[in-house]
Amino acid sequence: MSAPIRIGIAGVGKIARDQHVPALQHNHRFELAACASRNASLDGVKSFDSLEAMLAGAPELHAVSLCTPPQVRYQQARAAIEAGRHVFLEKPPGVTLSEVEDLARRADQANVTLFASWHAREAAGVDRARQWLEEARVQRVDVQWREDVRTWHPGQQWIWQPGGLGVFDPGINALSIMTRILPDEFFLERARLEVPENCQAPIGAELDFTDAAGTPIHADFDWRQTGPQTWQITVETDRGTLLLEDGGSRLSVDGEQLIDGEDVEYAGLYRRFAELIGADRSEVDIRPFRHVADAFMLAERIATAPFHDQD
Amino acid sequence: MSAPIRIGIAGVGKIARDQHVPALQHNHRFELAACASRNASLDGVKSFDSLEAMLAGAPELHAVSLCTPPQVRYQQARAAIEAGRHVFLEKPPGVTLSEVEDLARRADQANVTLFASWHAREAAGVDRARQWLEEARVQRVDVQWREDVRTWHPGQQWIWQPGGLGVFDPGINALSIMTRILPDEFFLERARLEVPENCQAPIGAELDFTDAAGTPIHADFDWRQTGPQTWQITVETDRGTLLLEDGGSRLSVDGEQLIDGEDVEYAGLYRRFAELIGADRSEVDIRPFRHVADAFMLAERIATAPFHDQD
Repeated sequence: MSAPIRIGIAGVGKIARDQHVPALQHNHRFELAACASRNASLDGVKSFDSLEAMLAGAPELHAVSLCTPPQVRYQQARAAIEAGRHVFLEKPPGVTLSEVEDLARRADQANVTLFASWHAREAAGVDRARQWLEEARVQRVDVQWREDVRTWHPGQQWIWQPGGLGVFDPGINALSIMTRILPDEFFLERARLEVPENCQAPIGAELDFTDAAGTPIHADFDWRQTGPQTWQITVETDRGTLLLEDGGSRLSVDGEQLIDGEDVEYAGLYRRFAELIGADRSEVDIRPFRHVADAFMLAERIATAPFHDQD
Repeated sequence: MSAPIRIGIAGVGKIARDQHVPALQHNHRFELAACASRNASLDGVKSFDSLEAMLAGAPELHAVSLCTPPQVRYQQARAAIEAGRHVFLEKPPGVTLSEVEDLARRADQANVTLFASWHAREAAGVDRARQWLEEARVQRVDVQWREDVRTWHPGQQWIWQPGGLGVFDPGINALSIMTRILPDEFFLERARLEVPENCQAPIGAELDFTDAAGTPIHADFDWRQTGPQTWQITVETDRGTLLLEDGGSRLSVDGEQLIDGEDVEYAGLYRRFAELIGADRSEVDIRPFRHVADAFMLAERIATAPFHDQD
């Protein structure tokens, strides 16, 4: 058994506390040894004011996990790579495709692992769905990803600003699952974005993709759903209809339930990160983010009712 | 001397007649042997109604050049690759990044050459500019790409529709030169798009890029310039100021003219295509197109005065 990977977390906010810290505490391959945050700290680990201070002051670290907002992630990831550390990126991996590609090249040159993580891919039903679809011929795909932005992002103005991605913030989770489970590459043919007239980012998106075989692949992303929330992917095939629900944690085929799993997403991500480090490899699958960029480039934009966080 | 590469042109429109046919006629490595168009033909070569008919009816073709609109290019390129032909793509290489990446993978698997062409890179001063900048430290870049859309695209409604790219149709030429001559990768930090209130695509774009060294790289694309037209790139360096004018055909450093060239763009492209075929390689540099997608994703959009082709 090799020595644990000593890791530091940059950005001690909600996602770090809710997901990263517990996942690291339950994974014996990692030792959480430091954190960097302007105004927060974690019990029992060395705290630094900034990533740069952590890189300089904790030379024992092998890796860092960036839980900071995407706007600062490029500079931080580059600094960590230049300091010879493996890097875990929260999703989305940056604000532009070009900067993420630049990071991938730099990690490769520096011989460190860069992992652009997509947590939804680790939901309990996703891997089994991928395996099942390998044996099937896909005939139609329908994705419904509908949630209430007021519940999930209360008071967060940045999501509506340029670069904030709007409804693609949850939608990219669906895209990360679609690119994992569908056996063929697909690409956008038409898109319609609904943008509140007082915002820069979309609150709704209707996307029509296809693949080389002409398969219709439709996705609806909506941030205005009150009541029950919907995160489901339906794949009609020659072997039956596959249904992934609850963001990928429940899987059924023709109504027969195959998996109804716990939330294991971040446990899976850190297991994968350790594997990649062990194998001296990176994993930067930019496809979910590229589909988002394609949608912004190709879409018809429709102005819709102004959005106010409090009605 | 090897036998000529027999090539067919799909899409017999203005760009094919003005550029592709003359370039092919002056390049002894190629033999223009067929064309495909719904309602046009070229003297002295076999004519077909469609690319599919040409692929089936002219088995002697080694390569095809796609001069059709980007909306149909994916299907055509895929059909040509599957038929074992080398493929030349006009710019932009498609309507989404994802479909272009899919083509690159298919060409690789089929062992044919795919060439995503960027004609502006072949302008007379570009290669010398690239060489000169290899020895310099870049301190600041300013790009001014200003032309009159009414002059260059009279009556073309598609440029304003979703996927039409608007002012990025010329602007991508600047981006193709920038990605060729600047020694370091750069990426977008801020963007502002001016979109006429009756259109979907921008008429103006202000882009602020940077690179790993923090170099300020600014670009203005504007389709509202009457009078003299401006296509110039200024690069301030520790060795002096480089100026590329007239879309890359004139090059000077600190006011001293180094190159004032003819229009050699398509001659250069076909020379390159023949080299790639000979070397059994593809060249799909998606970076210019990726910067456009990044801009659409990251930009602040500002509604501006409605555009009408005829004032």
